Amino acid sequence: MSALVLDGKALAESREQQLHAAVEALLTDGGRKPALATILVGSDPASATYVQMKVNACGRVGMESVRVDLPQSTTTEELLEVIGQLNDDPDVCGILLQHPVPPQIDERACFDAIAIDKDVDGVTTQGYGLMAMGEDAYGSATPAGIMTLLRYYDIPLEGKHAVVVGRSPILGKPMAAMLLNANATVTVCHSRTTDLADQVARADILVGAVGQPELIKAEWIKDGAVVVDAGYHPGGIGDIEKTGLAERVAALTPVPGGVGPMTINALISQTVESAQKR
Amino acid sequence: MSALVLDGKALAESREQQLHAAVEALLTDGGRKPALATILVGSDPASATYVQMKVNACGRVGMESVRVDLPQSTTTEELLEVIGQLNDDPDVCGILLQHPVPPQIDERACFDAIAIDKDVDGVTTQGYGLMAMGEDAYGSATPAGIMTLLRYYDIPLEGKHAVVVGRSPILGKPMAAMLLNANATVTVCHSRTTDLADQVARADILVGAVGQPELIKAEWIKDGAVVVDAGYHPGGIGDIEKTGLAERVAALTPVPGGVGPMTINALISQTVESAQKR
Repeated sequence: MSALVLDGKALAESREQQLHAAVEALLTDGGRKPALATILVGSDPASATYVQMKVNACGRVGMESVRVDLPQSTTTEELLEVIGQLNDDPDVCGILLQHPVPPQIDERACFDAIAIDKDVDGVTTQGYGLMAMGEDAYGSATPAGIMTLLRYYDIPLEGKHAVVVGRSPILGKPMAAMLLNANATVTVCHSRTTDLADQVARADILVGAVGQPELIKAEWIKDGAVVVDAGYHPGGIGDIEKTGLAERVAALTPVPGGVGPMTINALISQTVESAQKR
Repeated sequence: MSALVLDGKALAESREQQLHAAVEALLTDGGRKPALATILVGSDPASATYVQMKVNACGRVGMESVRVDLPQSTTTEELLEVIGQLNDDPDVCGILLQHPVPPQIDERACFDAIAIDKDVDGVTTQGYGLMAMGEDAYGSATPAGIMTLLRYYDIPLEGKHAVVVGRSPILGKPMAAMLLNANATVTVCHSRTTDLADQVARADILVGAVGQPELIKAEWIKDGAVVVDAGYHPGGIGDIEKTGLAERVAALTPVPGGVGPMTINALISQTVESAQKR
């Protein structure tokens, strides 16, 4: 048996074609070309690459992007000012503040300053609260992309035991909430979990979201599990060690080409959705 | 061995004395007498009793209460109007909307209409989102009261496996978030969980929050667990069957006299906190 590959790259490409058509339809209706504003603070090369990938994806689906690149020394007040301007800009239908920001900035305050109707990356506490309670809100992009991927491949979630390793505000916590909303039984593990191997061993659905290379070992994972790796580290390594997994799990995401493209796709998809609502 | 009894009634009484002193201090400082507004819609006897218990607790700590009793036929718009008035009332420092409201009312819209600084019962999605992300916010009263009880008795939480059975917006979900913030490994079970007995069997800390009499069986629970029962049903029955537990678990909450008094205490405590911030 060979595991089903959850091909995020292919799904994202296919969905981009639909999004392109949706954007064209907006223009035909006489609407303005929808724009995503991206904010990059500082010059971290990985962050710059992520922002560029998102800008490129905007272009591919026919959307504008408004790039705001700010210096490393930016203050919270300065960033809040920029966010306020973008909130007020009628041409901007979505705002992405690339995580992480430099340490002198209050990231939470800046995330939460994004207007809820423009929070297409799903980073506000208000959006998280609404989503967690099953109300209408844009989901955090990475877990939202993972859910789209799981649903596309008809992975059963209801009644399954999902184990999320990681509890970050934009990944582990919203991932757990989305899986719970999909009627999975959900366990959240993290750095203080004392029996990680045992917890992982019980997962029907495993999501690695810790940001540490191969912290989760292949031998912990049970046969037949669905393995989702949200990590990406230099050399194409994820948060989950893959040795031998392809022969014995039910499904798994490749790294790269699994969760990454779906993250960008969720962001773009939610931006188009926001444009459609205007 | 006999289980430690987590005596919520005694703790609430002791904390009420401190709260009384805190309210007196506010008055001495020339402040207005803090007031909690309670809103009861309809005439459900249990709900009426809960509201009366909260009003009584206000009185015991020297706070005012403003009772708003509305008819069963109240509309969402009418209730939103009342909440808006209480939001604007400078004498009101906390608002309790007794759950549940009649079915024609959009409870979520009404909860979320409560101003965040008066959401002392912790029912807004904004407050939930903030709390879940470790930001300053009033917690949902029942889980907040449970956390106070666990901390008072020095129950270790970090690295322990907590299993929450139930996922309601004001109980199961915020309970899971609070236990996660306290560095427990957290599993959330619910009506679609297929292996509830197995999940419960692994709990170091078990919270019953399903609202069904003795749905959780004593025989599922492992020796040495900490058992918290947030259920209350006629005849002093909780969500957890207690047969033989007292002889083999580490600690447990009585029903009644465990979680119930702590729920009211959390509400009152957060109302005093709100008064202190004004």
